[in-house]
Amino acid sequence: MTDFQMITAAAGRLSGMSARTPLLNSPFLDEIAGRRLFVKAECLQRTGSFKFRGAWSALSNLPEDVRRKGVIAFSSGNHAQGVALAAKLHGVPAVIVMPHDAPKLKIDNTRDYGAEVVLYDRLTEDRDAIGARIAQERGLTLVRPFDEPLVIAGQGTVGLEIAEQAVESAIAGAEVLVPCGGGGLTSGIALALEAHAGFRVRPCEPEDFDDTGRSLEAGEICTNLPGGVSICDAIVTPQPGKITFPIMKRLCGPGLTVSDGEVLEAMALAFLRLKIAIEPGGAVALAAALFRKDEIAGDAVIAVASGGNADPETFLKAF
Amino acid sequence: MTDFQMITAAAGRLSGMSARTPLLNSPFLDEIAGRRLFVKAECLQRTGSFKFRGAWSALSNLPEDVRRKGVIAFSSGNHAQGVALAAKLHGVPAVIVMPHDAPKLKIDNTRDYGAEVVLYDRLTEDRDAIGARIAQERGLTLVRPFDEPLVIAGQGTVGLEIAEQAVESAIAGAEVLVPCGGGGLTSGIALALEAHAGFRVRPCEPEDFDDTGRSLEAGEICTNLPGGVSICDAIVTPQPGKITFPIMKRLCGPGLTVSDGEVLEAMALAFLRLKIAIEPGGAVALAAALFRKDEIAGDAVIAVASGGNADPETFLKAF
Repeated sequence: MTDFQMITAAAGRLSGMSARTPLLNSPFLDEIAGRRLFVKAECLQRTGSFKFRGAWSALSNLPEDVRRKGVIAFSSGNHAQGVALAAKLHGVPAVIVMPHDAPKLKIDNTRDYGAEVVLYDRLTEDRDAIGARIAQERGLTLVRPFDEPLVIAGQGTVGLEIAEQAVESAIAGAEVLVPCGGGGLTSGIALALEAHAGFRVRPCEPEDFDDTGRSLEAGEICTNLPGGVSICDAIVTPQPGKITFPIMKRLCGPGLTVSDGEVLEAMALAFLRLKIAIEPGGAVALAAALFRKDEIAGDAVIAVASGGNADPETFLKAF
Repeated sequence: MTDFQMITAAAGRLSGMSARTPLLNSPFLDEIAGRRLFVKAECLQRTGSFKFRGAWSALSNLPEDVRRKGVIAFSSGNHAQGVALAAKLHGVPAVIVMPHDAPKLKIDNTRDYGAEVVLYDRLTEDRDAIGARIAQERGLTLVRPFDEPLVIAGQGTVGLEIAEQAVESAIAGAEVLVPCGGGGLTSGIALALEAHAGFRVRPCEPEDFDDTGRSLEAGEICTNLPGGVSICDAIVTPQPGKITFPIMKRLCGPGLTVSDGEVLEAMALAFLRLKIAIEPGGAVALAAALFRKDEIAGDAVIAVASGGNADPETFLKAF
């Protein structure tokens, strides 16, 4: 199980490898949010999302002889790029199994980082079977996107930086809003901030994909109903993870939910006011900070902008 | 005259006020540039451009009884916002004289930072006469956009950060490409890096507005020919400054020139690969790093992205 020590150890392995992303703010956004609003810009991380942290944390901890054979991952895009770059920097092969309808930019980038991309059809093919076959044939190690203690530890380093940067920005306490798919980033940040009494983490999700928020309310893992549609491709997981959920249940506040329209508006405001590009799934926490102010407590809020990898056509929808 | 000591003093006054903007990079941009390319993202600075540094440097150094009466500035937009916010944070009035065809975002923001905006017609009205009249009536202090030692010192703090960040990013030497209008930022960075032998500053300008590049070549101040048109509104000054030019002549390498089309391409690449929004005038150095590689020496280059304040319509042209 991931603990604070594992997160600081991951931070040590990531030192000089990952960027310490800035905590941005704008008086124009403060006004909309009704309080001081800070954005942790993980879209400026290597590979354009926080996922590089978890991937590097996991790969850098593998025994040399295991790592040398290579790694495999399933991902619609950001974990894919994180694992691909981490493998490239270690000089080991990576196979990434991606749905054929993932954003083109994410597929192209993953290939450009040197990984072998295997596409599958979400509706007719069994991803796990494809992955298991390739992994067995080639002796690859599976790097899970969120239900993996070392990956959670890597994502938790975002929380360590938030704690440091809160001091620098004179933020005594704040709710910390995090885009939540499987819960790796949310649970990692919650663990990193556990000892900071004034900081409470809250998972943010798109409407119809609020599995984590409903699970926290119910006290047990709930799944999303089938048929939901969202532009937030990065975080439309069916349910929280088996490892991440107990952490979130113990440490997180209630979930927050936003609409696709609010996500697009948050993307446009981030571009105009903070000068950063956030992808839809990465913008749900900022959208919640801006448009759910009555559901948030305190005079400061921190929203994690978890990634920026969208196709230009998606950004055009926001303008 | 500005010297290194004035720049470190300005850095002291700016401590806790300005952001230490990140030095970003992307392997995809390295490939286009043909060398390691780093972008100093001053578009992420408060007010969306480096101009806040110079404005704060100047205002924070005024005697209290002088500052209290207020300040006045001429600007098409970024200096306007920098002075407006610096005045607001000091709790003193600011009047900004702006051309009525400045980008709407810049006019709106300047007002929203609390300044009184006086619009004038570039073709029929005398900006200096308008400003002089208001300044005299109200006892305001003029804050020049570039030909002012304290402003140059403030902009020079960008160079101090580049020197520190170069060490962190293992950059032993590099040409430092800087968007150049009147030369405040360029001369300030050149002074800050003077003692760093491996770093040479080069002014970057749009075609038809390469007054600084031609002045450096001629060894004396040259003006732009009338009738030129460029999308780079922030840096279409008629000639380099009387104070800034001698500094640039002593310290800078030859100028680099790029087309509006290359600027738009650089903006799109910055958005796609670095996840940042750069305005046209702020993107000329990145465009030069990407598209003038044969005119640049060394295995690393640093491009300053000086601002990000463009109207959404301008960004749409880049996509």
